[in-house]
Amino acid sequence: MTSDRRILIYDTTLRDGAQREGLSLSITDKIRIARRLDLLGIPFIEGGWPGANPKDVQFFWQIQEEPLTQAELVAFCSTRRPGVAAADDAMLQPILAAGTRWVTIFGKSWDLHVTEGLKTTLDENLAMISDTIAYLRAQGRRVIYDAEHWFDGYKHNPSYALETLNSAIAAGAEWIVFCDTNGGTLPHEVSQIVQDVLQHFDHPSLVTRHPSLVTLQFGIHTHNDAEMAAANAIAAVMQGACMVQGTINGYGERCGNANLCSVIPNLQTKLGFSCIAPEQLAQLTDTSRFVSEVVNLAPDDHAPFVGLSAFAHKGGIHVSAVERNPLTYEHMQPEVVGNRRRIVISEQSGLSNILAKARSFGIELEKQDPTCRQILQRLKNLESEGYQFEAAEASFELLMREALGQRQPPFEVKGFQIHYDMISGKQLLCATSMATVKIAVGGKDILEAAEGNGPVAAMDAALRKALVNFYPEIESFHLTDYKVRILDGAAGTSAKTRVLIESSNGHQRWTTVGVSDNILEASYHAVVEGLEYGLLLQAQVQEALTSQV
Amino acid sequence: MTSDRRILIYDTTLRDGAQREGLSLSITDKIRIARRLDLLGIPFIEGGWPGANPKDVQFFWQIQEEPLTQAELVAFCSTRRPGVAAADDAMLQPILAAGTRWVTIFGKSWDLHVTEGLKTTLDENLAMISDTIAYLRAQGRRVIYDAEHWFDGYKHNPSYALETLNSAIAAGAEWIVFCDTNGGTLPHEVSQIVQDVLQHFDHPSLVTRHPSLVTLQFGIHTHNDAEMAAANAIAAVMQGACMVQGTINGYGERCGNANLCSVIPNLQTKLGFSCIAPEQLAQLTDTSRFVSEVVNLAPDDHAPFVGLSAFAHKGGIHVSAVERNPLTYEHMQPEVVGNRRRIVISEQSGLSNILAKARSFGIELEKQDPTCRQILQRLKNLESEGYQFEAAEASFELLMREALGQRQPPFEVKGFQIHYDMISGKQLLCATSMATVKIAVGGKDILEAAEGNGPVAAMDAALRKALVNFYPEIESFHLTDYKVRILDGAAGTSAKTRVLIESSNGHQRWTTVGVSDNILEASYHAVVEGLEYGLLLQAQVQEALTSQV
Repeated sequence: MTSDRRILIYDTTLRDGAQREGLSLSITDKIRIARRLDLLGIPFIEGGWPGANPKDVQFFWQIQEEPLTQAELVAFCSTRRPGVAAADDAMLQPILAAGTRWVTIFGKSWDLHVTEGLKTTLDENLAMISDTIAYLRAQGRRVIYDAEHWFDGYKHNPSYALETLNSAIAAGAEWIVFCDTNGGTLPHEVSQIVQDVLQHFDHPSLVTRHPSLVTLQFGIHTHNDAEMAAANAIAAVMQGACMVQGTINGYGERCGNANLCSVIPNLQTKLGFSCIAPEQLAQLTDTSRFVSEVVNLAPDDHAPFVGLSAFAHKGGIHVSAVERNPLTYEHMQPEVVGNRRRIVISEQSGLSNILAKARSFGIELEKQDPTCRQILQRLKNLESEGYQFEAAEASFELLMREALGQRQPPFEVKGFQIHYDMISGKQLLCATSMATVKIAVGGKDILEAAEGNGPVAAMDAALRKALVNFYPEIESFHLTDYKVRILDGAAGTSAKTRVLIESSNGHQRWTTVGVSDNILEASYHAVVEGLEYGLLLQAQVQEALTSQV
Repeated sequence: MTSDRRILIYDTTLRDGAQREGLSLSITDKIRIARRLDLLGIPFIEGGWPGANPKDVQFFWQIQEEPLTQAELVAFCSTRRPGVAAADDAMLQPILAAGTRWVTIFGKSWDLHVTEGLKTTLDENLAMISDTIAYLRAQGRRVIYDAEHWFDGYKHNPSYALETLNSAIAAGAEWIVFCDTNGGTLPHEVSQIVQDVLQHFDHPSLVTRHPSLVTLQFGIHTHNDAEMAAANAIAAVMQGACMVQGTINGYGERCGNANLCSVIPNLQTKLGFSCIAPEQLAQLTDTSRFVSEVVNLAPDDHAPFVGLSAFAHKGGIHVSAVERNPLTYEHMQPEVVGNRRRIVISEQSGLSNILAKARSFGIELEKQDPTCRQILQRLKNLESEGYQFEAAEASFELLMREALGQRQPPFEVKGFQIHYDMISGKQLLCATSMATVKIAVGGKDILEAAEGNGPVAAMDAALRKALVNFYPEIESFHLTDYKVRILDGAAGTSAKTRVLIESSNGHQRWTTVGVSDNILEASYHAVVEGLEYGLLLQAQVQEALTSQV
């Protein structure tokens, strides 16, 4: 099953990943994620612990209706209970009923956990390991043995820890997986201990062994409590482990599990191991975002390899160098993992950032053009007032088009009013937010009013009401995110406020920014630019369509 | 300066950390963070690149008004430009003007960057390094040399890379710092290369060297693009590096820098090195949260060591085991880094929290008291609505006193109105924020109106105007901080908003919280509780004074 350089990836997002605080998966979520992992080329997908909760039982049944194409689905369970024959332990029946070819059994390696946790004898623990595995083998299952707390157990009592592995191997486990359950082990310890144990079992080193001789193989399962999960997984692989257990985006209890979105590209692009096909690796970024979408957690923009900022360049020197030769400031090609380079606009920006950005907006601009320097100057002035364009590319494009004389505001705001009224007795009796706007559009003055949940929703509603007769496409626009930052805490409520607003037309999203010492005015600027930019996008689409005809 | 086991921490949150996309620091922010790092016992704090932007120049000037107590503030700059004498390069003058004892100079180690980036010759790059350092030494500065792209440069052309270090050392640099600028190096490579280079310079190994012989020392600066920043820093230290450069919470460009909140506890609790005093280490969690607060980024709950979930236990087996013996499922004691164990969904731990909290407010409460359970229930309900009392202890105390029948609101709000009016032509012509409040106090209804810079300032002013005749002490109250967080991005402007308001009476500060889907209403709740709590404090002071008499 493995070649010398093949590392088998074992995903446990659906089981260990789901232990993350704040993460909860429906059966449909689990099935969607499993299918996506199958497409990514993950060979082992741990689906859950059938029997531990009804959801996991149903997951294994439902997925059988349309089995995965490539991946082996794995059921997870502990060793049998103390003092009961495996065949008589009701806990193991749902595991067999799950109908998977492979089962992962976890058992205790650390004597402390046997006596303090399980409250049984060291010998009974050995019997629990071997009985459980032997029983599953007799039922035609192949077994992966997860040695829980391996590193702590081995440090504490190495000979007993090795005995637990002997029990698992003798009973027919094909894989032994070293688990750093508490996540506190450092890479040099993982390296040393994996080396010792593989030598103990006379396991040929990764370089010299011949695949056909291998019947017993070793894997690694790490946690991130010391920020070492990915480094530890790699340290074990370099000592001969050829399975890595981890989760997409590193989800997991406490600080998470080994992040497969980091482990896979490290193994594959930096160390020459093979995990998944190159075209699957190019799906990694999308897979990461898909999973974060399904579990409804905001993606980590700063995640290695797959984050939105992973290949973002800010400083001017960086930008000009990376455009000449990406090697200078990029450790790898972003496309290999399906990510892309981004040029970020900020006060550290030089002219080269402005030019690169203009190109990405489809604007022709020459470095010699004095407008270029004007834009940079305006940018720096606005940023010193508290504006920030890194996250507000739409506002920056409008600023750039204005400097180039290409901005034609589709309407002009002549005034607006916000009115908030609350009447209370013992309880809140009544509260309304109302906005009135006066705009000039198509040579006419329009006055409109609208209510909303809050002042910003009301002003957005009033503006759209005033504009929809002139620009019917505005019907599809809506606000999708609203962020507020107070720029200088010490000045209290009179401090400058920066508002970021994300808008959408159902297909695209864009972000605009407003700054003022009045939160309503800052919000108003961002809302108005959001509408203007949405109309600009629509106009560009129509232009493109017209030119095709 | 260093003992055998002492590792000097060099914080670059204010410079490299600020390169993080979406992070922008005011001068006040920078000063607050620097003072906090000083308290944490960080020996080197890089303040910025004076001259690169006006903010960094001002930071170094302003902080001199009240210098740090322990830490060395460091100014950061590149080597001089090609073809100019260091003394004639205007770039270096603001560095001297910054007035720091220590300067960090970064230079090119990688030949590719010299020829492609700087567009100069390999020899001129060597001259740039030595001239710059020699010039600064002649001006009485001590110099740390950051060897940019060290690992990539060394892999590519080791002899040239070593020549750059020779130039820096000969010119008087006291520290050589190996930078993994692109963040793509793996721990075994860092280990090997640091070992090779230290041998090349005949640097005594960490174990055998004697402090008094050491004049040249080595450091490490890593980035997290391969999720290896912390592991790489530790690998270098284990080979003899005795400075680690990194940032609080791992902030930094792209995927961030080495996270000092992980590096310090790893070095100190797992490897026996010493970085900061144990009582400072116990401030690590608070420092991490303080910095995330100042930069207004949500803290990462799953961060190793300092995250809210880092020592959280969910499942029943874990919880009962960890309560019997923490070693079973915790890699270290959370208190060492100032964090705490959390049992997720456990009434028991909740009750003891309530009791502990009550004690800290000087409220006597018994575990058996049914009020205790009522408070817990109310707390849980409010938290599920988005309230958060960790940072709003004043609101929590009011809630607790209410449950105990000890809350006597000094006034009742019957209604309020906010009115915002803006009239614009081409330019903004006129804008006013006005608030009207109706309150009942001392048996009378009072109606008052006030203007302010923004709606919250206006409502605060109107309330104080209405109350001042009844409670003259209110004259001294003012709002000192105002924070807004949108709790559910997906719902746009109708999402729940949490407002935290900090108030002061000139002597004490207190924080209150309000949550609503309307930002004005959330602000109103926080402002009203802020005034109520301020009056409660005043009453307590008077009571204490009276009882003394």
